[in-house]
Amino acid sequence: MKLSRREIALAALLAGAGLTEAAAAPVPPAGRTEHGARPSADPSYFTKATGGEYIAMVLYPGMTALDLIGPHYFFSTMRGARVHLVAPTMAPVACGQGITLSPTATYADVPKAVDILFVPGAGFPTLDAMKNDQLIDFLADRGERARYVTAVCIGPLLLGAAGLLKGYRATANWGIRDKVLPAVGTIPVDARYVVDGNRITGGGVTAGIDFGLHIATLLRGPDNARVCQLLAEYDPAPPFDSGSPHNAWPESVSLVQSMIAGFSDDLVAAGKARANKA
Amino acid sequence: MKLSRREIALAALLAGAGLTEAAAAPVPPAGRTEHGARPSADPSYFTKATGGEYIAMVLYPGMTALDLIGPHYFFSTMRGARVHLVAPTMAPVACGQGITLSPTATYADVPKAVDILFVPGAGFPTLDAMKNDQLIDFLADRGERARYVTAVCIGPLLLGAAGLLKGYRATANWGIRDKVLPAVGTIPVDARYVVDGNRITGGGVTAGIDFGLHIATLLRGPDNARVCQLLAEYDPAPPFDSGSPHNAWPESVSLVQSMIAGFSDDLVAAGKARANKA
Repeated sequence: MKLSRREIALAALLAGAGLTEAAAAPVPPAGRTEHGARPSADPSYFTKATGGEYIAMVLYPGMTALDLIGPHYFFSTMRGARVHLVAPTMAPVACGQGITLSPTATYADVPKAVDILFVPGAGFPTLDAMKNDQLIDFLADRGERARYVTAVCIGPLLLGAAGLLKGYRATANWGIRDKVLPAVGTIPVDARYVVDGNRITGGGVTAGIDFGLHIATLLRGPDNARVCQLLAEYDPAPPFDSGSPHNAWPESVSLVQSMIAGFSDDLVAAGKARANKA
Repeated sequence: MKLSRREIALAALLAGAGLTEAAAAPVPPAGRTEHGARPSADPSYFTKATGGEYIAMVLYPGMTALDLIGPHYFFSTMRGARVHLVAPTMAPVACGQGITLSPTATYADVPKAVDILFVPGAGFPTLDAMKNDQLIDFLADRGERARYVTAVCIGPLLLGAAGLLKGYRATANWGIRDKVLPAVGTIPVDARYVVDGNRITGGGVTAGIDFGLHIATLLRGPDNARVCQLLAEYDPAPPFDSGSPHNAWPESVSLVQSMIAGFSDDLVAAGKARANKA
């Protein structure tokens, strides 16, 4: 029987009243919701290098670094995982906003069957990426055999361009999700991350952190993921309620929408062109 | 008069009862707390390249990329800001976990008086950074004149090593904060980020996101920061309550503490050695 923290706390209270045998059961920290069973007493789930998963994180010009670096943190916290930044060659890749990342493996180095294939999003450079045959072909090839096919922000549209999200439910950056995902045959879902079969997609930029922790949980279990979260001190305290169109001021939402209206039309056109090509 | 969202909502309700003139006041999205006044109707606070702030984000070998890339996202969303990754030379810097970042400016390129000086944390490589005279001397020099002197994770200890946090209140990664900050004369504070004068410090890794948004607010005001947050879709939904020692299971906390016990002793020794040298 698995007990929630609430049940364990209740059991402890009842035990104090002599009503049950669970007297030694721990009380969870006050004021917090429960999230799964108490961790194993044997920490080898975290300390032992296990798994050896191959994680291919795709770089391309103009990509948003934070889309990738967020999940990368959690992937590389899993001991024994082989986390690679991949590109056609080992030449450094200029991401957006002055960040340049060096690949650790070329496309040719990446095994045919990887555990995770991941592609980040970008702003305007997504349009170039949609037309980049080498990138899209790589995604299509490895995506066919990958254990998990994943992306965040506008990255899901690139998976879609590679024919990997046809008929799947997926999410993406809120600003373009509902308009552009259907262009590649994908059913948009309003969620922080979405799991449909082995397709895992995350919303805009920082959603990659929740997405990364969720994938760490799938690969290594919740005890391990909770340690990853604690190492990352991921106990968020946003200064504003402005992280989604559901809680932001309407003025902020319209401002972003007005900035990306033309861009999302272009993305739809690029997505349809790809869908027709496939 | 500035109204909170709660006050605006109340005003709207009262208006319905004919008790006030604020009938047109908007009601905030349901179920959310309020965070400041309704944004300006003129979006130039976001769309116009203003400020021209020089932001120097320091790279060093072994640093944790996410410590830097989180705040970098928010800094570079501020139009007109000059955000630079700085190092002694333009040679790429190998961060931890296989990430290599290219500098965009050398130490010599960085103006004497910058708007923000920022230094990320690291794991074990922090010990090398503490002994790296070139790095510490650069922090000490630019920190003396910077408008804001900032760091996250274990980065505050490097500011401390440069003599920049003596007598200040600061935070750092929860695992080492209370033990190591006093070694450089700093008063540890248990908070996601701490502002003391022009010193701004953040907790572990992901605290850099809240920290970055707070700094964006200081530099460009809340209307701008709310748009940054919306672009980043920063509406966090951690899968577990495990982001701080206050809410994580005790087993997770002890596991991390046992891993870093020796490390934090070494950090204290390095901090004291620096304090004596100064």
